[in-house]
Amino acid sequence: MNLDDLATQPGEWLRGDGPLSEIVISSRIRLARNLVGFPFLGKATATQRRELQRILRDRIKTLKVDDDVFYVEIDRSEELDRQLLVERHLISRQHAEGDGSRGVAVSGRETVALMVNEEDHLRIQVIRSGLQLDEAWQDINHIDDAIEEDVEYAFHEQYGYLTACLTNVGTGIRVSVMLHLPALKLTGELERVFRAAKDMRLAIRGLHGEGTEATGDFYQVSNQITLGRSEEEIIDDFKNGVIPKIIEYETRARDLLVREKSSALDDRIFRALGALENARTVSSEETLFLLSHVRMGVNLGRLDSVDLKTVNDLFLMTQPAHLQKLRGERLTGEERSIARAEYIRQRLAGGGNNNNNN
Amino acid sequence: MNLDDLATQPGEWLRGDGPLSEIVISSRIRLARNLVGFPFLGKATATQRRELQRILRDRIKTLKVDDDVFYVEIDRSEELDRQLLVERHLISRQHAEGDGSRGVAVSGRETVALMVNEEDHLRIQVIRSGLQLDEAWQDINHIDDAIEEDVEYAFHEQYGYLTACLTNVGTGIRVSVMLHLPALKLTGELERVFRAAKDMRLAIRGLHGEGTEATGDFYQVSNQITLGRSEEEIIDDFKNGVIPKIIEYETRARDLLVREKSSALDDRIFRALGALENARTVSSEETLFLLSHVRMGVNLGRLDSVDLKTVNDLFLMTQPAHLQKLRGERLTGEERSIARAEYIRQRLAGGGNNNNNN
Repeated sequence: MNLDDLATQPGEWLRGDGPLSEIVISSRIRLARNLVGFPFLGKATATQRRELQRILRDRIKTLKVDDDVFYVEIDRSEELDRQLLVERHLISRQHAEGDGSRGVAVSGRETVALMVNEEDHLRIQVIRSGLQLDEAWQDINHIDDAIEEDVEYAFHEQYGYLTACLTNVGTGIRVSVMLHLPALKLTGELERVFRAAKDMRLAIRGLHGEGTEATGDFYQVSNQITLGRSEEEIIDDFKNGVIPKIIEYETRARDLLVREKSSALDDRIFRALGALENARTVSSEETLFLLSHVRMGVNLGRLDSVDLKTVNDLFLMTQPAHLQKLRGERLTGEERSIARAEYIRQRLAGGGNNNNNN
Repeated sequence: MNLDDLATQPGEWLRGDGPLSEIVISSRIRLARNLVGFPFLGKATATQRRELQRILRDRIKTLKVDDDVFYVEIDRSEELDRQLLVERHLISRQHAEGDGSRGVAVSGRETVALMVNEEDHLRIQVIRSGLQLDEAWQDINHIDDAIEEDVEYAFHEQYGYLTACLTNVGTGIRVSVMLHLPALKLTGELERVFRAAKDMRLAIRGLHGEGTEATGDFYQVSNQITLGRSEEEIIDDFKNGVIPKIIEYETRARDLLVREKSSALDDRIFRALGALENARTVSSEETLFLLSHVRMGVNLGRLDSVDLKTVNDLFLMTQPAHLQKLRGERLTGEERSIARAEYIRQRLAGGGNNNNNN
């Protein structure tokens, strides 16, 4: 398994068949950790960074997760590969664009990613399809413990885990659930739902996390508070609090559309499909928008000529770096738009599916 | 043959297979005539209007055109039927919405229409598919002469035919050519072409003549001057002057798009088709816009899954009155948009073609 394989195979969490996957795309947990005996990265020398990477990489190598783990040295990677990892949600944009020795370990099924020398010495991420926060928590807890057997984390009795940024001090946990909320968008209720989430000190972000716009009706809901509550309490807030509530609202909005505005609903769904099947040039932003409506159509049973797997694949493979990896060449923006339209047409016509490893 | 047949069968000029029909939709000539011994309609009494209609209707009845002629008394017609005749370009909006005794005689193939008591006592119209001005002129000249055998036209040695509106005095002729100019629109050259036409004292109008917006890239070019030039000279200006010039420009623009912007061109064409094949609700205005691009695609050979006859039929049958006649019921705007989308999908899927009499 390496980066080129990654470009053509969607990982586990992209299967799109996890619990409640009509609305919940993925459940993600991330832990921020730093090692004792080294300064935070802002103060670390190049030598210290290299040493940190060596220690953590060695530790990760012997880690037992459910499948192979491969390591990518980000500072020695090509731009396209770094972008691919960002599109895959395996590293942050900051990590892709940063400086100095740094890397990421990725499990073959992409459920686990460990960023070394991003903002903290180590960031462990577990991501799962649908609503699987308990499973993700079990996995990440196990990995966290296993790493700690060999290295010592910076930990303060009173404050908890110490992190480069104050907002992560404490548990160092960030729980993120990616939701697909096209119906709430269409009925205009999204703002109200988001205001309620913000009142609960939750952050709402776009597809690619911090600082990104919501595109294609995908929204990441994540906690902002890491101090003063246990990991289990934070996860419980999501699992039994805010997420079921949003799912309920979205479901109600979808029912309403089906019941009272089925022509307008189908119009959006089928026009989106028609555009995807016929476009000769299409931007990644428009693609997200169109796929979002098709996805809703499939999930609501309004549309049966396309399956969810194809839709999920398209979300992934039509991203700029993926597209260029698939083509095996660098493309300009205009060339990408043409190649993207071509790829989508091919996939929707049932052909060209060379990335199906299920 | 009657009005209900009309609603389901496109006439001769809508076959779309006349000369240069890739760009020229139709050639139309209209003559304005008034009878001696009656005032212009603005001054006529109800009795005089009725008498005028009786005389002209009797005269028309014995007229020999190439197929059956049927007469519709507009003031006794339902609104939907009047609207149907407008959509069919057989009567003007003014005639549909006017007052008093008035009517129209229509030949079964719709090449000939004679409006009685519109703005003038009689308006003779001949319309042909593609660029056929000579043929239209021969036909209308013959009809004009035949009518004049029995009735006397108001004619002045110096001024020519006398008409209710001064702009028609002289020959009383209006020549109109309907053009489809999507490529000039896309390349942004349309304004320049139109300015040149206006310099030649030609009027440019939308699909439904005076006071209507150009929709779906269809434009009517017609003469504004009827005095001081013979009918043949006016027709010659069109046939050998302005129309070949505009055709040349549009052809050049189409070639340019094919050669240098084929992705952008195909994108428009196929997205338009995709929208028509998938929409669940669509306005008549958007339908025109979409069909316009599909028509261009068929004519440029970029698209072969649809034939021109289907496209032409759709232009006609998706109009509000046609749609309601087809459905056999009155529909609200929203219901029409849904019915229109349904009809289009059915026709594009190759079904539901119950209006093919060729």
